[in-house]
Amino acid sequence: MYLKNAWYVAGWENHLDGGLLARTICEEPIVFFRGEDGKIGALEDRCCHRSAPLSVGRLKGNEVECGYHGLRFDRTGQCTAIPTQELVPPSACVRSYPVILKNRWIWVWMGDAAKADESQIPDYFFLENNAWANIDGYFYVECNYQSYIDIQLDQTHSPYVHPDTLGNAAKLRVKPSVKREPRALKCERLFPNDDPPPLWAKAANIKGKGDSWNRWIYTPPATIMFDVGAAQANTGAFEGNLEHGITVHNAHGITPETGTTTHHFWSNARDFGLDDPETEEQLSVIRRVFREDVTICEAVQRRVSQFPDAHQIDVAMDYPTLQARNMLARLIKEERE
Amino acid sequence: MYLKNAWYVAGWENHLDGGLLARTICEEPIVFFRGEDGKIGALEDRCCHRSAPLSVGRLKGNEVECGYHGLRFDRTGQCTAIPTQELVPPSACVRSYPVILKNRWIWVWMGDAAKADESQIPDYFFLENNAWANIDGYFYVECNYQSYIDIQLDQTHSPYVHPDTLGNAAKLRVKPSVKREPRALKCERLFPNDDPPPLWAKAANIKGKGDSWNRWIYTPPATIMFDVGAAQANTGAFEGNLEHGITVHNAHGITPETGTTTHHFWSNARDFGLDDPETEEQLSVIRRVFREDVTICEAVQRRVSQFPDAHQIDVAMDYPTLQARNMLARLIKEERE
Amino acid sequence: MYLKNAWYVAGWENHLDGGLLARTICEEPIVFFRGEDGKIGALEDRCCHRSAPLSVGRLKGNEVECGYHGLRFDRTGQCTAIPTQELVPPSACVRSYPVILKNRWIWVWMGDAAKADESQIPDYFFLENNAWANIDGYFYVECNYQSYIDIQLDQTHSPYVHPDTLGNAAKLRVKPSVKREPRALKCERLFPNDDPPPLWAKAANIKGKGDSWNRWIYTPPATIMFDVGAAQANTGAFEGNLEHGITVHNAHGITPETGTTTHHFWSNARDFGLDDPETEEQLSVIRRVFREDVTICEAVQRRVSQFPDAHQIDVAMDYPTLQARNMLARLIKEERE
Repeated sequence: MYLKNAWYVAGWENHLDGGLLARTICEEPIVFFRGEDGKIGALEDRCCHRSAPLSVGRLKGNEVECGYHGLRFDRTGQCTAIPTQELVPPSACVRSYPVILKNRWIWVWMGDAAKADESQIPDYFFLENNAWANIDGYFYVECNYQSYIDIQLDQTHSPYVHPDTLGNAAKLRVKPSVKREPRALKCERLFPNDDPPPLWAKAANIKGKGDSWNRWIYTPPATIMFDVGAAQANTGAFEGNLEHGITVHNAHGITPETGTTTHHFWSNARDFGLDDPETEEQLSVIRRVFREDVTICEAVQRRVSQFPDAHQIDVAMDYPTLQARNMLARLIKEERE
Repeated sequence: MYLKNAWYVAGWENHLDGGLLARTICEEPIVFFRGEDGKIGALEDRCCHRSAPLSVGRLKGNEVECGYHGLRFDRTGQCTAIPTQELVPPSACVRSYPVILKNRWIWVWMGDAAKADESQIPDYFFLENNAWANIDGYFYVECNYQSYIDIQLDQTHSPYVHPDTLGNAAKLRVKPSVKREPRALKCERLFPNDDPPPLWAKAANIKGKGDSWNRWIYTPPATIMFDVGAAQANTGAFEGNLEHGITVHNAHGITPETGTTTHHFWSNARDFGLDDPETEEQLSVIRRVFREDVTICEAVQRRVSQFPDAHQIDVAMDYPTLQARNMLARLIKEERE
Repeated sequence: MYLKNAWYVAGWENHLDGGLLARTICEEPIVFFRGEDGKIGALEDRCCHRSAPLSVGRLKGNEVECGYHGLRFDRTGQCTAIPTQELVPPSACVRSYPVILKNRWIWVWMGDAAKADESQIPDYFFLENNAWANIDGYFYVECNYQSYIDIQLDQTHSPYVHPDTLGNAAKLRVKPSVKREPRALKCERLFPNDDPPPLWAKAANIKGKGDSWNRWIYTPPATIMFDVGAAQANTGAFEGNLEHGITVHNAHGITPETGTTTHHFWSNARDFGLDDPETEEQLSVIRRVFREDVTICEAVQRRVSQFPDAHQIDVAMDYPTLQARNMLARLIKEERE
C-alpha cells in the first residue's frame, strides 16, 4: 500500500557516480543511470528477455545494455537493439520512470507518468546552497517507512531514545501546534524568552534570553523538513526575521524499499559556522542520533512482524504522527478510488 | 501446541545480572527483570503503545521504562506513567507472568495466572546446596523441544551419539522399568553386583563389585532430573542408602522457544569430590556430551522441517520416550478441554 | 517438475572419498557411499525411525548405520539391525536409488528403479581416458537448473557475459544448425576456411586458414557435451577426420538440487598438450568463464524469484535453448501421462 502518484527520493546525486545504480522502491527494482548527455534515467531493473537485472549490465552512451545477451534500452524503456537480429519488436521494452535531479537528490515518480508533476517536489534549497553547510547521510533501515516517518516527526521519544544528546524532557511540556495543508502537515513548538541551547546561543551570539523553536513540514508520502533554531529574544524570529538568529534544517527522504525496509537519505544543513570545524564536530552527533532512531525502529519492526495484528493504544503525544498517518492514508485511499 | 498452565525454566538466576533479560518462551516474547527490591518480574516484551520491545528499555526502580516513549510498567503489567499526559488509562497495560526464583532457576508460568501453583515446581535442591558441586550450562538448540526431551530420556542413543564417552552398548541389555505418576514419569535401569564405572568406583571407594544405576524423573512439560550413581554392592543403595555410594544428578530445563527452537538449561551436580579439580575435569566431559545431543537433534530437525508429514516407525527402545510424549499429549489435551 | 525416470550426475567419484556423501537431488536428500566391497550405494537420507539424516551416521562394511540409534541399512534400503531388539520389521526400510559410477561421475536414477536403463547414460569417455587431460570442477549455483542449462547451450551471451575471454561477437553471425533426436538435441556452428583461434592454431600446427567449430549435444534432462575444435582447412575435420586438428570437450552435469539451486559438475578435456603447463594455464580460464555464468544466472534467479509470473519475450537467438526446453518439457509431460 504505497502512494504511487508521488515523488520519492531515490538517492543522492553522487550515488550515480559508480555507473548503474540498483535500488528497489515501493517493491519495484529500478536501475538509475546518468547518460553521456548528462541526463538521468530510471528503468525497470529486469530485462524483458530473460529477466536479468539491467543493473548488472553496462552503460552505453545514453542507453543501458543488458549484461546477459546485450539487448539495449533507451531512457524511455524502448529496446533499441537485439544482437543477431535486425528487427526489434515494439513489445521489447521495459518500464521507465519519470526521474528528476533536484537539490542533489534523485527524485522518482512511482505512478502514472502522465501525472508526474515536478511542482510537487518540495523545495529543499538548503541541500545545495552556498549559504549552507551540509552533513549528509544514507541509512538502510529494516523497518516500515511509516514507522520511521513517525519517529522523525515525533520529538517525545528524544529523552528515551537519545538520553545523552537530545534528551530534554522539559521541552516536551510545550504542546506542539499542528496545521494541515492540502499536501503538507506543519508542526511547531515555540520556546519564547527561554534559555537557548548553548551551541545556538554561541553561534547566534545571543545575549541572555532567546526565542527558540522546532518546526517540521511533512510532505507526504515520505519527505520531511525539520527546522531547529534560535535567535535573540524578541527580535521577530518567530515571524521570520532571522537577522539575529541561526537555524539548522534537517531534510529526510524516507523511501519505502519494501513493507519492512526503508531507505533514509538525510542531511543536516546549517546557515552558520560553515567552515568552522568545531561546529561541524558538534553537529556531527546527528549521525549517532539518527542511528539511535534506526535501532529502536528496527526493534519495533521485529515485534510488529511477529504480531502484525496486535492491538496498539494511542496516547496524547501521538497527535502529530497520527495526523501525518491520516493524511497519507487519505491520499492513498483517494488514489485508489 | 504447548502446555500453558505449567512452569517452564526461563533462565539461570545470573542471567538477570545484566539488567533486562529478553527471552521468548512458547513463542511469547518476555522481558525478565529484578527490581531494586530484589523481586523478579516477567512482562510481555512488547509495549502496548507502539510495540517496542520493553527489553530494549530501562529498569527504573521496580518498573520497566519503555525505550521508545518512556511509558512505565510495574510488575503487574499496569502502565504507571505516560510522558506528556496526566491520566493513564487502564487499557495501558501489558501481560505479566507469574515468575519464581527457585534453586537458581527462573521459573515462569505460561498459562492462567490464577492457576499458578508453586508446589508443581520440582525440587531440584541439588542446584543450590553446599553438599553439591555444579557444572552449569545453557544451550540454544535449533530443534523442537519434545525431540530434545526424547534424547535426554533415551539412553539407547549413547553408543551412537557418544561413542567416545558414554558409549556402553552392553548396558542397554538391561531393560528400563518405567513408572507413571499423575504428573511425573520415572524410569530406572539397575545394574546390581556389576563392575562400577571407574570414576564412580574411585570416588565412592568401592572394592570389587558395585551396585550402580541410571534413573530419571520427567516432570512434564519440560524438566528432567537424571540420577547416575554407584555404591558398594549389597549396601542397600537401590533402597536409598547412599552411605557407601555417590551420585551425580543432572537437571534439565528444556524450554520451547518456538516449535523448532529450544532453550536448554542444565546442570551436572555431584555429591563427591566437591573441590577436587580432577573430578571436575572428568565430569566436565558432560558439556561435550550434551553438545553431541544438540548436533544430532538439530540434524533431525532439519529433516523433520523438510518432511513434516513423513512417516516414522517406532521401535522397542522407544518405550520410555513414547510414554513421556503420551503423558505430555494427554496433559495438553486435558488443558484444551 | 523434474524428469524422474532419468539419470542425473550426483557427483565426482572422489566426492565419496570422505565417507558418507549427503547431496540433495530433485529435492530429495540422498546419502551416497562406497562399501568395503567397492560398490556404491544411494539411500534416502532420512532414517525411517526418528528422521535423522543417515549421512550423519557411519559406514559399517557395506551398510550405513544411523548416527542416532544405530539402525543399519543395506544397499537396498532394508534395515538389517535394530539395537535392543531381535526382530526387524519389513517396514523398517528407506528408499534406495539405482546408482552407477561411469567415467568418474556418479549417476543416480531418480524415478522407478525397474525402468533404470544404464544405456541412457551418455558416453563421456573423455572424462576418463589417457588420451585426454582434464580440468575438473564443481559449483553450487543458486539458480534454476533449466536457466543454467540455457546459458551452457547458448553462445550468444559470450560477448556480454565473457567480454574479456570468449567475447567474439563476430562469430555469432553464423547461425547455429539444430538437429533433434529422440533423446538428444544437437547443435553446431561451423567456421570453414577461417582464422582459427590462436591457441588452437598453435596446438594443431595449423598453417594459414583453418576449419573450426562449436558443437554441443544436450542429453535431457541435464547433461551437455560441448565440443570446440579446429583443424587445417579442408582436411575433412567437419566430416570427422581429426588427424590435422585438435578439440576440447566440455562436459556439464547440471543437476537440480531444488527449484532454485543447482549442482554443476564440469570438466574441460583436451586431446592435445596433455602435459604442457602453458596449455593447462591457458585453458584454466574456463573456471573463470563458468564463474561468470554463475554470476549472471544467480542475478537472473533473484528477479525470477521476485516476479515468477513476469512476462518474458523470446528473441531469434533463443532458438536452440527453446528447442532444448521444449524437448525436456515434452519428456516430463510424457512421463506424467
